[in-house]
Amino acid sequence: MSELPDLLVQAVVRHALAEDLGRAGDITSSACISPDTRLEAVFAIRKQGVIAGLACARLAIVELDPGARFEIVHADGARAPAGAILARVEANARALLAAERTALNLLCRLSGIATLTAQFVAATAGTGARIVDTRKTTPGLRALEKYAVRCGGGANHRFGLDDAILIKDNHVAACGGVGEAVRRARAAVGHMVKIEVEIDRLDQLDEALAEAPDIVMLDNFSLADLAEAVRRTGGRALIEASGGVSLETVRAIAETGVDLISVGALTHSAPILDIGLDVDA
Amino acid sequence: MSELPDLLVQAVVRHALAEDLGRAGDITSSACISPDTRLEAVFAIRKQGVIAGLACARLAIVELDPGARFEIVHADGARAPAGAILARVEANARALLAAERTALNLLCRLSGIATLTAQFVAATAGTGARIVDTRKTTPGLRALEKYAVRCGGGANHRFGLDDAILIKDNHVAACGGVGEAVRRARAAVGHMVKIEVEIDRLDQLDEALAEAPDIVMLDNFSLADLAEAVRRTGGRALIEASGGVSLETVRAIAETGVDLISVGALTHSAPILDIGLDVDA
Amino acid sequence: MSELPDLLVQAVVRHALAEDLGRAGDITSSACISPDTRLEAVFAIRKQGVIAGLACARLAIVELDPGARFEIVHADGARAPAGAILARVEANARALLAAERTALNLLCRLSGIATLTAQFVAATAGTGARIVDTRKTTPGLRALEKYAVRCGGGANHRFGLDDAILIKDNHVAACGGVGEAVRRARAAVGHMVKIEVEIDRLDQLDEALAEAPDIVMLDNFSLADLAEAVRRTGGRALIEASGGVSLETVRAIAETGVDLISVGALTHSAPILDIGLDVDA
Amino acid sequence: MSELPDLLVQAVVRHALAEDLGRAGDITSSACISPDTRLEAVFAIRKQGVIAGLACARLAIVELDPGARFEIVHADGARAPAGAILARVEANARALLAAERTALNLLCRLSGIATLTAQFVAATAGTGARIVDTRKTTPGLRALEKYAVRCGGGANHRFGLDDAILIKDNHVAACGGVGEAVRRARAAVGHMVKIEVEIDRLDQLDEALAEAPDIVMLDNFSLADLAEAVRRTGGRALIEASGGVSLETVRAIAETGVDLISVGALTHSAPILDIGLDVDA
Amino acid sequence: MSELPDLLVQAVVRHALAEDLGRAGDITSSACISPDTRLEAVFAIRKQGVIAGLACARLAIVELDPGARFEIVHADGARAPAGAILARVEANARALLAAERTALNLLCRLSGIATLTAQFVAATAGTGARIVDTRKTTPGLRALEKYAVRCGGGANHRFGLDDAILIKDNHVAACGGVGEAVRRARAAVGHMVKIEVEIDRLDQLDEALAEAPDIVMLDNFSLADLAEAVRRTGGRALIEASGGVSLETVRAIAETGVDLISVGALTHSAPILDIGLDVDA
Amino acid sequence: MSELPDLLVQAVVRHALAEDLGRAGDITSSACISPDTRLEAVFAIRKQGVIAGLACARLAIVELDPGARFEIVHADGARAPAGAILARVEANARALLAAERTALNLLCRLSGIATLTAQFVAATAGTGARIVDTRKTTPGLRALEKYAVRCGGGANHRFGLDDAILIKDNHVAACGGVGEAVRRARAAVGHMVKIEVEIDRLDQLDEALAEAPDIVMLDNFSLADLAEAVRRTGGRALIEASGGVSLETVRAIAETGVDLISVGALTHSAPILDIGLDVDA
Repeated sequence: MSELPDLLVQAVVRHALAEDLGRAGDITSSACISPDTRLEAVFAIRKQGVIAGLACARLAIVELDPGARFEIVHADGARAPAGAILARVEANARALLAAERTALNLLCRLSGIATLTAQFVAATAGTGARIVDTRKTTPGLRALEKYAVRCGGGANHRFGLDDAILIKDNHVAACGGVGEAVRRARAAVGHMVKIEVEIDRLDQLDEALAEAPDIVMLDNFSLADLAEAVRRTGGRALIEASGGVSLETVRAIAETGVDLISVGALTHSAPILDIGLDVDA
Repeated sequence: MSELPDLLVQAVVRHALAEDLGRAGDITSSACISPDTRLEAVFAIRKQGVIAGLACARLAIVELDPGARFEIVHADGARAPAGAILARVEANARALLAAERTALNLLCRLSGIATLTAQFVAATAGTGARIVDTRKTTPGLRALEKYAVRCGGGANHRFGLDDAILIKDNHVAACGGVGEAVRRARAAVGHMVKIEVEIDRLDQLDEALAEAPDIVMLDNFSLADLAEAVRRTGGRALIEASGGVSLETVRAIAETGVDLISVGALTHSAPILDIGLDVDA
Repeated sequence: MSELPDLLVQAVVRHALAEDLGRAGDITSSACISPDTRLEAVFAIRKQGVIAGLACARLAIVELDPGARFEIVHADGARAPAGAILARVEANARALLAAERTALNLLCRLSGIATLTAQFVAATAGTGARIVDTRKTTPGLRALEKYAVRCGGGANHRFGLDDAILIKDNHVAACGGVGEAVRRARAAVGHMVKIEVEIDRLDQLDEALAEAPDIVMLDNFSLADLAEAVRRTGGRALIEASGGVSLETVRAIAETGVDLISVGALTHSAPILDIGLDVDA
Repeated sequence: MSELPDLLVQAVVRHALAEDLGRAGDITSSACISPDTRLEAVFAIRKQGVIAGLACARLAIVELDPGARFEIVHADGARAPAGAILARVEANARALLAAERTALNLLCRLSGIATLTAQFVAATAGTGARIVDTRKTTPGLRALEKYAVRCGGGANHRFGLDDAILIKDNHVAACGGVGEAVRRARAAVGHMVKIEVEIDRLDQLDEALAEAPDIVMLDNFSLADLAEAVRRTGGRALIEASGGVSLETVRAIAETGVDLISVGALTHSAPILDIGLDVDA
Repeated sequence: MSELPDLLVQAVVRHALAEDLGRAGDITSSACISPDTRLEAVFAIRKQGVIAGLACARLAIVELDPGARFEIVHADGARAPAGAILARVEANARALLAAERTALNLLCRLSGIATLTAQFVAATAGTGARIVDTRKTTPGLRALEKYAVRCGGGANHRFGLDDAILIKDNHVAACGGVGEAVRRARAAVGHMVKIEVEIDRLDQLDEALAEAPDIVMLDNFSLADLAEAVRRTGGRALIEASGGVSLETVRAIAETGVDLISVGALTHSAPILDIGLDVDA
Repeated sequence: MSELPDLLVQAVVRHALAEDLGRAGDITSSACISPDTRLEAVFAIRKQGVIAGLACARLAIVELDPGARFEIVHADGARAPAGAILARVEANARALLAAERTALNLLCRLSGIATLTAQFVAATAGTGARIVDTRKTTPGLRALEKYAVRCGGGANHRFGLDDAILIKDNHVAACGGVGEAVRRARAAVGHMVKIEVEIDRLDQLDEALAEAPDIVMLDNFSLADLAEAVRRTGGRALIEASGGVSLETVRAIAETGVDLISVGALTHSAPILDIGLDVDA
């Protein structure tokens, strides 16, 4: 069993296939191709990037042709050069062509996320900062997109509203202060739940640290304030920088000494990686 | 009932909420905010763009608080200036904060598509060419993303493998020629189904036109060949240009006289439009 | 992969099996038959007809016994004589008996539709008219029933509200006229969508044709008016006759020169074709 | 709460609406009718029959317009004369037209079953025999179709494989005899489960009755054998006649004194009852 | 095919696995164990009991590793001694560890029910009374829990609100009396449905028996009244004792001569049977 | 919005209602009670306990009668005395009786868990140890059962395999040691994930602590070893005791100074709390 169980990926793949097949299936292939024709093809990358999502491509094809063969050349997490063959497939022709768009939609999108993540990771190489994602993911694809971030060398922030505490400005306002918010959160949740608190201003830091949160998120801080916060914290909590992070700004942010830099763009604005399915003539 | 029935949007919204709420729901808001607190807030746009998806945002909130009020200021399809308020909402505080990310994930993504589409439409203004989307959509969100393309002034290509014929190179190869492929397709489908055939070279055009397809797609043609194909076709079929279309190249393509330009990037690589939920202090 | 992907048929078959198995499964077979007994049986037709739905029968059995063998003798679309064996099956006895009713309910119903369709097709042989179905299908079985119509030699009308335009009297009334309705429809939809408009009176024909719809439906026209409409149209659009079509009237309608005759009864009132499962003694 | 809980009917109605709306919804109504238009309409019957399924029609409309009004004139179970108005509805125009086909597909089909059932019931009036249905129902609609049988004055046989024992020829063969089959069944199931055994020949009757089944089904017996079986049974079990029952033969069968006559055609071959939705001009 | 079809069990098992895997799957095993490691293990019972649910355990593992081997030693329904090995399994290590808790949660719970049932059955050995369950089952697990009761030697009461009539005090009150309630029930349901009526006092018995119900339930009767009711009934109906049944009281109840004793605790309060998965070192 | 969103509870409640209603609904109430009758009733507790799950009871009724009124007297988390009224309800009679068993099955089960939890909490009062649950929950009900544990004063361990790391003996064996296992886990997961490691012997403690896990679980340690482990740890990690915990042993365990005591029986073996629905005469 691979890292992401097929049971979880299948649900996404089947839903995607059903969306594309509609009520009548692939009417073009049914009209043009005889039912027993078989094809060989390769998934080939048009320009270099980091791969994520080959299991999705494989499952899309296997769902329509359980007898299909799928052989991986460059696995998830690999950086493949332009033109590289990622995988070879042999399958029923109608099944392969019907699954093609679903396979590519997932593979190109996830590889796009992995590739962009890898760029952020490279831009911060040698600093101690980790690049992490956010919950700004595509509805229905969160687990896959966070997997793609890992393929690109990034790390995951929380997966949902339920698996970790993240106290934001509205929570602080409702509680009357950062400290009270952390105290309420700690009292409410179990020992397996981490607690992070977001602050907007440097002068909230001491109050936050007094409650010993696991992580403090500094939202839209200047570089100087980030550095000062790192200094004051002195390792008592992890420090996460958030807001206004781009490939241009990320290295300077990392060099302030923060532990984590969260980047919404990894999942909400990554262009796809251009991968195609080339059928053998 | 609006253009996209709530029944269809609800399925996406509920799935997205369930993905974010996980097993235990919004543990931070449950810990920090009392159950009966109510909030007023606005959806505000950070930089100008074209709006799409307010129904998703509304439904996300209403699913968690059926008593929420949601008042639209700039409706779907409108171009809103930076800083504009798109909608005002009043709702239970826990419900609003739990729904916030789902609402924004859908609204920002769809508005990003609408905004990018509008840029392509603007770039071809005054030509006869329409900007159309593709099936390179996010799995699970196709109907919503194609709706966003319409909000941006674009038009929709087929919605799936089942609602129109699109004969591509592999189908042509299996049939032994463009003409035979169109004939097989016409024999196989009903009178309510349009037939489009893709060609890779100008010398396939006459064979294609001889079978009177509704549309001929010219894949990766030079500008000169596009223009020549338009001239030769003389209105006997719609002509669609496809491949290598960008904001830089689209106007020149449109000026060749093609009827349709399909742009995968509308849905596979549009960055989000930055919209936030600002809670009233 | 056959014309109708297993992925689509499986959903119907599983739902049907679950409905019949209920909470406790086939309690009679569990009580009377030992778990490892195997049976051989044949699907046999009681009186002649056109077959449709063998994949449903096969999947029903295979869902309950993945090791079952199912060998087709008369495939979908074939006309089988009374008494003919359609398929041979070898399977676990409990599984076969539990699947029997589900298999037959689908096979008999779809073959009934194919058989009735073939009668309409035969009745119009030699004319240029095609027999087409409607959306008057059984909820949940539309794709299967439209497939059965194709097995019987008919063609399919649109599959749903979303894949083609069909302007009816209420739409015309809302738009203030046939022409305006077609114009609004054309402006609203993409280039892959066909447009059909229904008229109730001959004097609406010219206004309709002026907007160049793909198809004009003549609802409940007399034979004389049908012929006159065909003459006036002169090939500028396809002409579909609708309303009051029976096996007695269909040939006369076809001989007016219409292109298409839609028959709701194909799917809403076809008696089943009597097929049984005969277990080898 | 009515006899059939909305919770059960909703699942069917939503599935049917989703099937018809497809990915893009009712594109014709969206193009032709403004979003806030409202319509008044009536469900009217074209020729007399027995009504079943108004709740389906109501729910189809209410699902798309929760604010719709639906007023019943002739309720389920009533015999309505040709031309009668069954219900009046006021709703959003787009919602009403989008729901129309789903509402009618269910209402016409169920009323067709109720009407055919009522004909069988009328044909046996004055005898002691009840008309009962079978499991030869449309996959996905069993509960609704059995409800329609009740609306027509018939009674229900078992609802699935799990709620009663019905020992058929293959079970008898596996057990080595009718008596052993009944004994095994009785030992296997609880006290809330009725036991019926099918026999093919009169000479099996005594062996069957010796085990005191609740019901004995006589499959394809002659009228003489039916009468003889009734006489021999003398009330020790209910007697059900099955096989070859038509409107022509049913009265003679009933007059043999059998308690129950099961008729597959009630659900597998009933033509629809013609009902239309007439929009007020 | 075993008694409980895999199709029914799979739905429960997949839902349980999805609940445990959450969004990211088994992150501990993914981190610590290489993807191709295989393990051998045994399901071993810690103290003696009656087994039920091995199919659940097998399916949980096979869902995550279709190539897993699962060999049963003590089958469902067997009484296994403390320390006994129930089944041996060989599977992918990540899959086995990810499935372990789901497999055990179902197996231990169902075996707990079987074991408790067997204790009640043993306590009434030699009397004519059968131990039966109730509808006080775990939501979502009713069919499995009633199967476990059968494994323990008990019998099943009705499976839901729809498969048999059980008239209780509120129904009697609404009808104005026990007799009228039975009459209404008999008129409403088909011949395959058994009718049981609950009475609270001995003086209701004659009125109940006059309507010939299949079963009379005596709710919270004293031992003396139970015996008197059995005597008065004289075999005209089955007698079920209900209320206040425990392992201490059940034999005395059985000795009154009642036919059935229903015990809610079988399914609502059975402690689990302690079974573990021991991995071979 | 309450702590557990209705959206999550509804899925469980609807599934439970569908399981009980089956194909035909509550046939007894449909037969005996007229459709418009209304009832008033109270949920009353038979012996004292801690309440959990009133939202489930309310939703079960409201799903079948959206107009029902439900007024809570003793809310979730309250300790109610024997005989106390927990809630008053007024609803359609058929809906109320059809929902009764589903409402009670959930309410009694969850209140049973809350009550047993409260007993463990009381038994450790005054020590620093918290009572926590496990993943030994009922498949499909985990979120509800963990909520019930919170109602009883306990705290939650992890919710699934995906939201926290718990390294057990098999993981340690695969990694070759406790320390390596923790290192691999830390490298694999994000900063929002807590890490717990289980040890079987005191001599593993130092190796574990050297890697600074958040929690160390001591599996089946003697009281002396527990105390020694607490002493050696000196607050560097939380200490959780696990295995062989009962109401008899829990206080002694708590007094060793451990931080957490996990108790599987809270969810796998809690008897229900006896609550009934009493209809007003």
